[in-house]
Amino acid sequence: MADADFEVQLLLTGNEIMSGDTVDSNSALIAQRLGAIAVGVRRKVTVGDDVALLKAELAAMATTADLVIVNGGLGPTIDDLTAEVLAAVAGVPLAEHPRAVAHLEQWCAARNLTLNAANRKQALLPEGAAIIDNPIGSAVGFELDVGNCRVVCTPGVPGELRAMLDSIVDDLAARLESPVERNILRLQTFGLGESTAQQIISDGVDNWPAEVELGFRAGAPQMEIKLTVNTAAALPAQQACRDQLERLFGDHIIGEGDTQMAEAVLELLIARGATLTTAESCTGGLIASMLTKVPGSSAGFHAGFVTYANDIKSAVLGVREDTLAEHGAVSEPVVLQMAGGALEKSGADYAIAVSGVAGPDGGSDDKPVGTVWLAWGRRGALHTRRLHWPVERTLFQTMVAAAGLDMIRRELLGIDAESRYFQQRSVKR
Amino acid sequence: MADADFEVQLLLTGNEIMSGDTVDSNSALIAQRLGAIAVGVRRKVTVGDDVALLKAELAAMATTADLVIVNGGLGPTIDDLTAEVLAAVAGVPLAEHPRAVAHLEQWCAARNLTLNAANRKQALLPEGAAIIDNPIGSAVGFELDVGNCRVVCTPGVPGELRAMLDSIVDDLAARLESPVERNILRLQTFGLGESTAQQIISDGVDNWPAEVELGFRAGAPQMEIKLTVNTAAALPAQQACRDQLERLFGDHIIGEGDTQMAEAVLELLIARGATLTTAESCTGGLIASMLTKVPGSSAGFHAGFVTYANDIKSAVLGVREDTLAEHGAVSEPVVLQMAGGALEKSGADYAIAVSGVAGPDGGSDDKPVGTVWLAWGRRGALHTRRLHWPVERTLFQTMVAAAGLDMIRRELLGIDAESRYFQQRSVKR
Repeated sequence: MADADFEVQLLLTGNEIMSGDTVDSNSALIAQRLGAIAVGVRRKVTVGDDVALLKAELAAMATTADLVIVNGGLGPTIDDLTAEVLAAVAGVPLAEHPRAVAHLEQWCAARNLTLNAANRKQALLPEGAAIIDNPIGSAVGFELDVGNCRVVCTPGVPGELRAMLDSIVDDLAARLESPVERNILRLQTFGLGESTAQQIISDGVDNWPAEVELGFRAGAPQMEIKLTVNTAAALPAQQACRDQLERLFGDHIIGEGDTQMAEAVLELLIARGATLTTAESCTGGLIASMLTKVPGSSAGFHAGFVTYANDIKSAVLGVREDTLAEHGAVSEPVVLQMAGGALEKSGADYAIAVSGVAGPDGGSDDKPVGTVWLAWGRRGALHTRRLHWPVERTLFQTMVAAAGLDMIRRELLGIDAESRYFQQRSVKR
Repeated sequence: MADADFEVQLLLTGNEIMSGDTVDSNSALIAQRLGAIAVGVRRKVTVGDDVALLKAELAAMATTADLVIVNGGLGPTIDDLTAEVLAAVAGVPLAEHPRAVAHLEQWCAARNLTLNAANRKQALLPEGAAIIDNPIGSAVGFELDVGNCRVVCTPGVPGELRAMLDSIVDDLAARLESPVERNILRLQTFGLGESTAQQIISDGVDNWPAEVELGFRAGAPQMEIKLTVNTAAALPAQQACRDQLERLFGDHIIGEGDTQMAEAVLELLIARGATLTTAESCTGGLIASMLTKVPGSSAGFHAGFVTYANDIKSAVLGVREDTLAEHGAVSEPVVLQMAGGALEKSGADYAIAVSGVAGPDGGSDDKPVGTVWLAWGRRGALHTRRLHWPVERTLFQTMVAAAGLDMIRRELLGIDAESRYFQQRSVKR
């Protein structure tokens, strides 16, 4: 059988998925991991915890698919039906699997629990099934062939599924005639929309090579651009495409893989032995929080100030009361004084200061919801900009926080180019 | 036909869902909205943008289901196949729909765009289809009967789908013999695990009424408990169950609906005309950020301090250097001085101070990763506690931030009871 004909289907089970109480992210994880060895998923079916439905779906899948991955239904409760269903479809009885019992005994012992009947049910597997180890949870995975179809049963708990996928993907790769080492280069960008990026590429690249698949994943605050190739021979073409993107909007590329804005900024700061401080009004601590989510952030970030009220801007950061009275909290002189105060109080090398109208209330004709003043830079060399970013409150906070970090990133990298989102969203003072 | 036999299936299309690049949350949204009128989804199938696959799935569904909701594939590109597929399965031609054209013209005019051929494709619908208005996007929804099955086609953009669901659900309710007004009471809790809550209820309630369905949705930092009834007659039983939960662990219930911890705390603060300040080390601004995500938070939160480094704890909050030297940053006297300093600098009525070891590095035998000291309360009446919460860094930050807020909530409500997570995670000094 040619690999291109190798058919994978997913069968997902769980009442909580059918009711919409839980959003299924497991199938996306499985598809991504299979995608890395160039195996696509043809079809996925989701049903509740219902024996008859599950049997019908699995039996139908097994007649056409080469591999079915079942997710969910491995737990200790009466609603966990996967072993029973697979046994019925394969026409074999359920039997207690010694290795699964041993795993359960070990699992319980490590937690000072007694192995009870409910847990013991998880060792009752279709006769002849092979075990897939679960390094985290009590329920082992298992697999069994039904005719020509391999059925692999995996746990619904995302961490447990994740822990099992390596061995499942390795096994699958070994079954393929010519496993492809698909290579996906992911670029993280900030300040570009999907359609804008597509347009710039269409206008700026004459002959995009057919062997490099271009993909976008919009997110907030970042957008990911994917360059996918399916052969090692296409790697130079992938690199050439990357170079083109660098040429077209390299200043918007934060990093590769899943690099987050705050990570990129911290890495640049730490490499220079520099530190950053934050003076936040409308973002309310989000910039500091983004930074401190990164392990090791203490090397580049020592102090942040959330000065949400005017009197706090004065008391904590030394913003002058007459400046606040004359210009209002959302103004250029106020963000400049906030940044200056934060630099002085913290002794940091760089500062970001933000004051804006996050909404939904608090806007005026002069300063509508979505208005924000940013200040950033070093002591004595601060820059400012007024932007208008009229989106929902938490998205506004997210985008503005990332924009502040991006300005520090650009400064640290010595990027002169005006960002596209500045061109788009700047407001004359 | 009895309503119980009314069968709904979902057909989801999109290469980005099949590849795992996008996690499908639309089907959960649809299921939740149907659940509100007690209509369950029997089965959902997801395939890529492939005409043959889509036709086969839709044709099979239409033979057994009463309603099929198709999601995705309505856009302007060549990959958007839904109209073509439905026309083929229904055996009708595609035709330009005048109301869809009018909608497109209006949509383009409002955006100062010219209606191009790609966009115009979105008006090409199966002959005889009825339009479902799209108040947001360019692609209208549409519906058509295939035999006895109504097929409703909806856009993949979540906001557009959401905007269409009201009218779809209303239409469906009108078709049912005896539409049920399902009532779901959602309680938000903090500091209880799913299995703990289940155990407390099993032990503490003798006769749980069969007509009240109990459900849990674990999350971080909160867990939701759902009490679902399907008839108005069962509303008193639902209320009685709620009372039982209040009795058993009412101090862990933050609020109803989707109330977030920070909202609950702000509401209590604002009702009392009081304000809160934060002095954060290991949570790094997250508590402030949780608070300021809430619209109107400025009434109860004026100032936050992120004092990540020792010298900043001294310079900004007045923590004594000899205290830091003697006890270390993660210690009771330091969080007390942090809280005291924040109260003094901000003039706030209440403070939360946090210092801990978020990891992955920085732990010691004495203070392993996951160790945290909390201080909270009013000037001159501060409380402290040492906890051990050994989970991954960002989850640690989330849980500790929520625990700090929870202590203020408990203080504002005059709750004396020791929380279960304190009982579980407290560490002798």
